[in-house]
Amino acid sequence: MSHNTYGHLFRVTTWGESHGPSIGCVIDGCPPGIGLTTEDIQPWLDRRKPGTSRFVTQRREDDEVSILSGVFEDDEIRRLHGGPVTTGTPISLLIQNTDQRSRDYQDIRELYRPGHADFTYDRKYGLRDYRGGGRSSARETASRVAAGAVARKVLGPSIRLRAAVIQLGPHRINRDNWNWETCESNPFWCPDASAAPLWEEYLDSIRKKGSSCGAIIEAVADGVPPGWGAPIYGKLDADLASAFMSINAVKGVEIGAGFEAAALSGEDNADEMRMSGGDVRFLSNNNGGILGGISTGQPIVVRMAVKPTSSILTPRQTVTASGAETDIRTRGRHDPCVGVRAAPVAEAMLAAVLADHKLRHTGQTGR
Amino acid sequence: MSHNTYGHLFRVTTWGESHGPSIGCVIDGCPPGIGLTTEDIQPWLDRRKPGTSRFVTQRREDDEVSILSGVFEDDEIRRLHGGPVTTGTPISLLIQNTDQRSRDYQDIRELYRPGHADFTYDRKYGLRDYRGGGRSSARETASRVAAGAVARKVLGPSIRLRAAVIQLGPHRINRDNWNWETCESNPFWCPDASAAPLWEEYLDSIRKKGSSCGAIIEAVADGVPPGWGAPIYGKLDADLASAFMSINAVKGVEIGAGFEAAALSGEDNADEMRMSGGDVRFLSNNNGGILGGISTGQPIVVRMAVKPTSSILTPRQTVTASGAETDIRTRGRHDPCVGVRAAPVAEAMLAAVLADHKLRHTGQTGR
Amino acid sequence: MSHNTYGHLFRVTTWGESHGPSIGCVIDGCPPGIGLTTEDIQPWLDRRKPGTSRFVTQRREDDEVSILSGVFEDDEIRRLHGGPVTTGTPISLLIQNTDQRSRDYQDIRELYRPGHADFTYDRKYGLRDYRGGGRSSARETASRVAAGAVARKVLGPSIRLRAAVIQLGPHRINRDNWNWETCESNPFWCPDASAAPLWEEYLDSIRKKGSSCGAIIEAVADGVPPGWGAPIYGKLDADLASAFMSINAVKGVEIGAGFEAAALSGEDNADEMRMSGGDVRFLSNNNGGILGGISTGQPIVVRMAVKPTSSILTPRQTVTASGAETDIRTRGRHDPCVGVRAAPVAEAMLAAVLADHKLRHTGQTGR
Amino acid sequence: MSHNTYGHLFRVTTWGESHGPSIGCVIDGCPPGIGLTTEDIQPWLDRRKPGTSRFVTQRREDDEVSILSGVFEDDEIRRLHGGPVTTGTPISLLIQNTDQRSRDYQDIRELYRPGHADFTYDRKYGLRDYRGGGRSSARETASRVAAGAVARKVLGPSIRLRAAVIQLGPHRINRDNWNWETCESNPFWCPDASAAPLWEEYLDSIRKKGSSCGAIIEAVADGVPPGWGAPIYGKLDADLASAFMSINAVKGVEIGAGFEAAALSGEDNADEMRMSGGDVRFLSNNNGGILGGISTGQPIVVRMAVKPTSSILTPRQTVTASGAETDIRTRGRHDPCVGVRAAPVAEAMLAAVLADHKLRHTGQTGR
Repeated sequence: MSHNTYGHLFRVTTWGESHGPSIGCVIDGCPPGIGLTTEDIQPWLDRRKPGTSRFVTQRREDDEVSILSGVFEDDEIRRLHGGPVTTGTPISLLIQNTDQRSRDYQDIRELYRPGHADFTYDRKYGLRDYRGGGRSSARETASRVAAGAVARKVLGPSIRLRAAVIQLGPHRINRDNWNWETCESNPFWCPDASAAPLWEEYLDSIRKKGSSCGAIIEAVADGVPPGWGAPIYGKLDADLASAFMSINAVKGVEIGAGFEAAALSGEDNADEMRMSGGDVRFLSNNNGGILGGISTGQPIVVRMAVKPTSSILTPRQTVTASGAETDIRTRGRHDPCVGVRAAPVAEAMLAAVLADHKLRHTGQTGR
Repeated sequence: MSHNTYGHLFRVTTWGESHGPSIGCVIDGCPPGIGLTTEDIQPWLDRRKPGTSRFVTQRREDDEVSILSGVFEDDEIRRLHGGPVTTGTPISLLIQNTDQRSRDYQDIRELYRPGHADFTYDRKYGLRDYRGGGRSSARETASRVAAGAVARKVLGPSIRLRAAVIQLGPHRINRDNWNWETCESNPFWCPDASAAPLWEEYLDSIRKKGSSCGAIIEAVADGVPPGWGAPIYGKLDADLASAFMSINAVKGVEIGAGFEAAALSGEDNADEMRMSGGDVRFLSNNNGGILGGISTGQPIVVRMAVKPTSSILTPRQTVTASGAETDIRTRGRHDPCVGVRAAPVAEAMLAAVLADHKLRHTGQTGR
Repeated sequence: MSHNTYGHLFRVTTWGESHGPSIGCVIDGCPPGIGLTTEDIQPWLDRRKPGTSRFVTQRREDDEVSILSGVFEDDEIRRLHGGPVTTGTPISLLIQNTDQRSRDYQDIRELYRPGHADFTYDRKYGLRDYRGGGRSSARETASRVAAGAVARKVLGPSIRLRAAVIQLGPHRINRDNWNWETCESNPFWCPDASAAPLWEEYLDSIRKKGSSCGAIIEAVADGVPPGWGAPIYGKLDADLASAFMSINAVKGVEIGAGFEAAALSGEDNADEMRMSGGDVRFLSNNNGGILGGISTGQPIVVRMAVKPTSSILTPRQTVTASGAETDIRTRGRHDPCVGVRAAPVAEAMLAAVLADHKLRHTGQTGR
Repeated sequence: MSHNTYGHLFRVTTWGESHGPSIGCVIDGCPPGIGLTTEDIQPWLDRRKPGTSRFVTQRREDDEVSILSGVFEDDEIRRLHGGPVTTGTPISLLIQNTDQRSRDYQDIRELYRPGHADFTYDRKYGLRDYRGGGRSSARETASRVAAGAVARKVLGPSIRLRAAVIQLGPHRINRDNWNWETCESNPFWCPDASAAPLWEEYLDSIRKKGSSCGAIIEAVADGVPPGWGAPIYGKLDADLASAFMSINAVKGVEIGAGFEAAALSGEDNADEMRMSGGDVRFLSNNNGGILGGISTGQPIVVRMAVKPTSSILTPRQTVTASGAETDIRTRGRHDPCVGVRAAPVAEAMLAAVLADHKLRHTGQTGR
């Protein structure tokens, strides 16, 4: 019943609307003694930040994070850790909303935008903050990225979390070209250097005609030891499925071979095992690093499908709150593919779920 | 932290192992005053029961359910309801395990079967009940089906829950041929009468060579009113993703257009709205009946991918608990496609998640 | 929202009514590798069992417990542990109800017994299982005692849990006479040998006139290390308060000096600290072993007040479900002081709360 | 496992330390459509505010609350409700810490103050924010009072919540003199006009000698309908026990007759029932408005015992973090009875628990 909280031992509660004064989150359950400053968080927020290329929303936000609680330093701590550390108490993070345009939202007050949560919020709550989507805006994911940065600190340097966009609209990458470093050199988190220019051309055309497209993101965690997770209803993959499906516009989640597994034979799907240097080594990773809900020690591989941005410039048929039929077209800022900015969010959710499962093993105190 | 419990207000805790004396579940949060006898549960269990065709495991189980608590009748109640009703207290259901073969499991004590949870259970717990998979056996899903039958009673007759197998191995149905009644006339829950004979031939060949294949199941709920669910982390689709991913062997979950949505344009993906008889009518259902985590009033559509049965007759490379390399092949009972029997389980999880969300609206008391 | 579950990591879900076929519980979160047979549980159930003296209800129950899941043994485990061990999966315990008298309960169908939950269950649920109190019967506490026995195994032999009745009706013990062994030699768990005969006389008089009295129970845990618990809303004392207040007929809970603390001066209340053998030693224990919600390493001391048995032979004024005024008096079995049998229940709840907090430190896997 | 969250459907997560930049809370689960401005919250904060008399801490805080999310207004809403209303999304409240004195806390860095959480925090976390008690400071209760004000809005005007101090040190009020209005005319929330001057004299003497005393607070809710709460482990009284015991310095909680009930006879304790104007009327309220964990419709009566302020001017024996024996005495601001300011906190917790149970009946949406 935690509509705005995720996690069990590493718990994150987010709050805030697109056009309120600020957004933020409270992280409960972070173990004590972990060095934490805004410098650990800000770089991840900067990766998700709007306005960084012509392919993402032109909303201008600094997304500057403040830490309001849960860390402490004195001379002794500074000497030992070089700065403040977590104390085990809740960490409150706050991000100001600076670009809440003062334009008139009255025109969408009554309109239900197809693909958005306008109609369903109204049916559930009877009213909604319609400015920029209010609580249902992708702006909420900034809080997730901030919390994910703290989760990374809980996981430590031995676990590496990365995400790439592997499909943009109908265009899939060639996995043989996969290079993580390539992700950093194009505005799409595309790991395939040969695909990136084609994507740029494609997305430009989409953008120019005011249309939109979807994307598939793949998130990978390297270095997770075997034995994390839990069977039946506390499964690592079930928690990942829930966490990823909770991201705005996501319509599908898969682990390892995912939907492809249905078409494999039992022989091909089996991840055979050998010994290597005293450790178990799997010869393939169709299971995506998880068996029976518990990590195998292989990379954790999660993919999610993001639907096309619902706000487009072409008019669509819709209805009003009072039951009149009408058309709607988005005006102003337009984001041709929300999936592009979802990669840092996927990383953050992966980090948070793994931090949660790590604490189930080490105990919440974390000493 | 409820490894063996799912749901928030309609909570189901399952227990039991494949080769223990019995399995069962406790359902907490069922509203009072709902007629409930074993006759409401048994038919659904019978649909999932092993041994009903040559395409499913030959384990012989009656799967006869007992209700140990949570219902009551006296003359007055019998007069009003025709039998016992729920009282609002926990409903304890018990199913005996009758076919726990006495064969020697010592040979798999040390062996890690690829695709199974043997290795990961050992790494997490340091020991495991290896008889028939113990707790990780699909036998646990009988408890889910029993609980799902109670969830159906909570939802009432206005909501219809059905599931079909839409892909068997690489063979997809033709959706134009979809007929729900066809599902009842073949052993595969296949809704496409022209596909069923081909599937039979295909699965026979798989079975004869001791191989296995996966499947994709689609579950649909008709009659869910708009406004169920909750935004952000209590999303109806996030809860469905978690519930479905927790089913044995499931590697992917999608809602509505799912992974296909990534390749759609914003124009094509938009579910446009018109008025019809005073109500909002959507012209398509790419969103699978859920927007912003809240039901739209359209059918809820969930698909899940089931990997091929891991136990196959062809030897696979593996290792032992003590680190020796060896081969393994399954002997005895063999189930060529566990996905076939997963359709009733998918229905049950859909029912449980919806019952849970219904209670968030009506309150748990349910009067 | 777990109306029938307590605990966070060590979770116990109880089910069953006074006059159903059986009662029981499911324990989720017990770490693996702990030796567990019915012999670990049965002795504690026997201490709570009805019918053991003329001062407790004459209902005849064997209270024989079965373990239906969550334990496993094979030759190797038997060799190492001497019997079955827990596997980390849910432990299902079942106790048959053998003495469900077939008497007619129709007379209390309509009557609201003062002090019982009849009226409130009817207002909440609209109906109730009125046979022997149904779910609200003290019979439910047998499941708690069984679960408490498992919690004791989780805590291990270094932690000792005991409870005594320190006040019976208006008669308080003299704490100077406290001797834990005395508790075992009288039917009241009275630790004061000089008080016991007076209590016997007093309770006989109460019993003979068909009246009833209350009691105060003190439960003590020795050997709890410092650092268990958590601040603010996960406080060890807050969890204990909830657990003890949930026991039938309990109207008050206090820790350490409890209500007496209000009248102490700050000087007298302060538990001063000295060093002793390298460890911190407190000079007094007004805090009852808990400061800021976290254990200090001193004995944990909890007291609870149990109200007099509500079922008495003297008529009391009441009303019927249909709104008529009438009188009621209990017939048949009569329990002059339910508090007497509450001591083993208090021990069990103390064990369960401590096991839960232990797991927060060690992690749920418990390896 | 929600160490900083309370409630199930009406969930409050508090954060912040005594000497951090700010404190606050996030309220999740508040139904939509409820008018809410800072004017609904500020008056309750002002009642708890430090520095209002010479009997409470002289820390100077404005305790000015900001609402950062979860409310919305436009012209239409303003016209209908006169101001912003809740939207059903999380309400983030923030209070600046303005009086974080810059004095040197180095002297208590190493010292474990008796009665405080210094020793236990260090044992649990390995470090602590020792400035003014950090997270364990009573400052955290300002967030509770703010959340309680929102809970009051959820409960509506038909439910009245009040609290009084009924014992100060060893001095109990005479209940025959009870007058709620008197509480507002003395600095002790004392409902007995004849006791207040004696208390003033007593507390002045305590204050002058740098000592401290405890208190007992009684909180009462009028207007709660019958049927709220839930049996077994979701009991209204168990939730109240946990909520009250979580307040700083509380060592005991009781409902209705509480510990006195132990000494009553069954005849005297029975709250007999009659009819009155078509409704059930109880002739007494020993049960404190709760039977079987469910409200009876009578006033809910909860009492809590607060221990004497631990910080006193008389030296006490203690030890340092490095194991040296020493003495400690508090310097600077001194609060002779923390119990005095606990009355508004008790009211707030009562409001929050009741709001939570109300939502279980009406459903979380609240329409």
